[in-house]
Amino acid sequence: MAKRLGRNTVELDSRPHIVSNAAVVGKKEGEGPLGGEFDEIYEDTTLGEETWEKAESAILNRTLTLAIEKAKLKNSDIEAVFAGDLLNQCMSSCFGVRDMNIPFAGVYGACSTMALSLIMASLAVETGAFEYAAAATSSHFCSAEKQFRYPLEYGGQRAPSSQWTVTGSGAVVLARNGAGPYIDKVHIGTVCDLGIKDMNNMGAAMAPAAKKTISDFLSETKTKPEDYDMILTGDLGQIGTELLKELLIKESGIDISSVHNDCGLMIYDREAQDVHAGGSGCGCSASVLCSKILSGMRKGYYRKIMFVATGALLSGVSPLQGESIPSVAHGIILKSEV
Amino acid sequence: MAKRLGRNTVELDSRPHIVSNAAVVGKKEGEGPLGGEFDEIYEDTTLGEETWEKAESAILNRTLTLAIEKAKLKNSDIEAVFAGDLLNQCMSSCFGVRDMNIPFAGVYGACSTMALSLIMASLAVETGAFEYAAAATSSHFCSAEKQFRYPLEYGGQRAPSSQWTVTGSGAVVLARNGAGPYIDKVHIGTVCDLGIKDMNNMGAAMAPAAKKTISDFLSETKTKPEDYDMILTGDLGQIGTELLKELLIKESGIDISSVHNDCGLMIYDREAQDVHAGGSGCGCSASVLCSKILSGMRKGYYRKIMFVATGALLSGVSPLQGESIPSVAHGIILKSEV
Repeated sequence: MAKRLGRNTVELDSRPHIVSNAAVVGKKEGEGPLGGEFDEIYEDTTLGEETWEKAESAILNRTLTLAIEKAKLKNSDIEAVFAGDLLNQCMSSCFGVRDMNIPFAGVYGACSTMALSLIMASLAVETGAFEYAAAATSSHFCSAEKQFRYPLEYGGQRAPSSQWTVTGSGAVVLARNGAGPYIDKVHIGTVCDLGIKDMNNMGAAMAPAAKKTISDFLSETKTKPEDYDMILTGDLGQIGTELLKELLIKESGIDISSVHNDCGLMIYDREAQDVHAGGSGCGCSASVLCSKILSGMRKGYYRKIMFVATGALLSGVSPLQGESIPSVAHGIILKSEV
Repeated sequence: MAKRLGRNTVELDSRPHIVSNAAVVGKKEGEGPLGGEFDEIYEDTTLGEETWEKAESAILNRTLTLAIEKAKLKNSDIEAVFAGDLLNQCMSSCFGVRDMNIPFAGVYGACSTMALSLIMASLAVETGAFEYAAAATSSHFCSAEKQFRYPLEYGGQRAPSSQWTVTGSGAVVLARNGAGPYIDKVHIGTVCDLGIKDMNNMGAAMAPAAKKTISDFLSETKTKPEDYDMILTGDLGQIGTELLKELLIKESGIDISSVHNDCGLMIYDREAQDVHAGGSGCGCSASVLCSKILSGMRKGYYRKIMFVATGALLSGVSPLQGESIPSVAHGIILKSEV
């Protein structure tokens, strides 16, 4: 039986193991510092599809398929896939899993989706009735720009605080019985809103949620930053990361500097690749977690990681209606027996 | 421990009880045949808000608050709320729960969301670490028309096969220990797509998913239609209901006529209220389930119900890109000890 440790934190008893992970990205991500870590890199980010949305669906489908293959399983072995994305009506996930013949539960957590889908899949495994459950998400620079900002053809100037949406996807297969890193604890985040209204500064909007989840998660598990090999945030980027560290020190007296990293800062070379504040999008934390991080855990480089993915819960119209940007951060603690 | 009964079906051991349910609707729904069943009816469907999206968020917030109050609980007692809706980026749910200070897990199932959120909440309770979990969803005629079809001001002609999006919301509180109807079995649906492309005929697009889920659910639980007091579909409307019955008989030899009802056919008087093929939207099955059906179970009118909510997984742009409409149907079996 799972055990409640606090308002948001649950300790799992079944140790859902990540038996496989896959990460597939686009050209720009492949040219970044983690280029050698990904399973596949698409030089042509259309994937031969006619629209950006279909290209994103194809990336998700490919990544999920690869994760299942790497686990030496068939689609029919997977008892549910938990997936979602940022496209309107989660189009990438819905169309990405359409032909896979796997029970599908859609989730929505904006850029926190990799953590949320992992939490949902873990809870399913914890019930005892799911031998294998998958979790996946994706994003695509071109579908995101088109939907949330301007058509690419417009060539809009980007704000210095803006982040670059990752073209990529991450997927894992969780097993009730298996080997690999496992999900030790999960933390479903509470929505935060400190009134940030600048939709070109997602890092600032999401930092308060990351702060809340990290400080609550540490306190509910009675742990300190030094107890982790890494506290990994999703896609705060440069500005959000600075704000997170400042908020944690000022409000909670917690210094995570020595163990913190952020997927949005890891995936690109900010200067050379001209991505301003860093990477973002559901595919950012998903592709970093499902490559360097989980592979590193399998190799024994990390034994205990707190993964906190953040999501800005704005919609395409909410900023135009004068709304501030609510955000949420979902967390998991990953452990490795290696 | 939960027990797997088949590819999609899981039997729960903990019997998550629905300790409270609430349904709030708009003027038109209040004037329909179920008018006397709802907790609250808003004559002014703006709820005093400036935009339709904010009005929908306010309805969801009100309904969830009411469900928690009816359970004689406080927000701080609820360990997670599982909610989603059809607005881009699930705006209604994200903003609706923003100020409630409850851990929030977003789900996406289009019009099947009430079933999906109940499944997720049930699985959470089943792990043993959630004493109380809530599930909710909403829709609003005006926000849906604006987002998926035409601005209301345009006064577009409606196709005879089209359905009327319900302005309303439903919410429940599930408890690990409690009284009331309980969730006996859950069924996460698999995506179906028979190639329907007419976005003005959602019933036809969703009928194959309903057919698949009902026939698989019956077969995996080794039950017959007569074993249920009701097999209740979400919002197939008139056309979808006819197609469902035909598909079930022709392809599986199953006749559900004597026990079937559809929330989309129950909520309006189709002729008098001029809604063409019936009601639809996440709020349709949610408000019907969370009023007449669950109240009826509490009174002992029904003892065993199969609730199968259907969702059309199209996005605002997918039909414009030539895509057919994938659909999914998630199911639960509700039992009452009364």
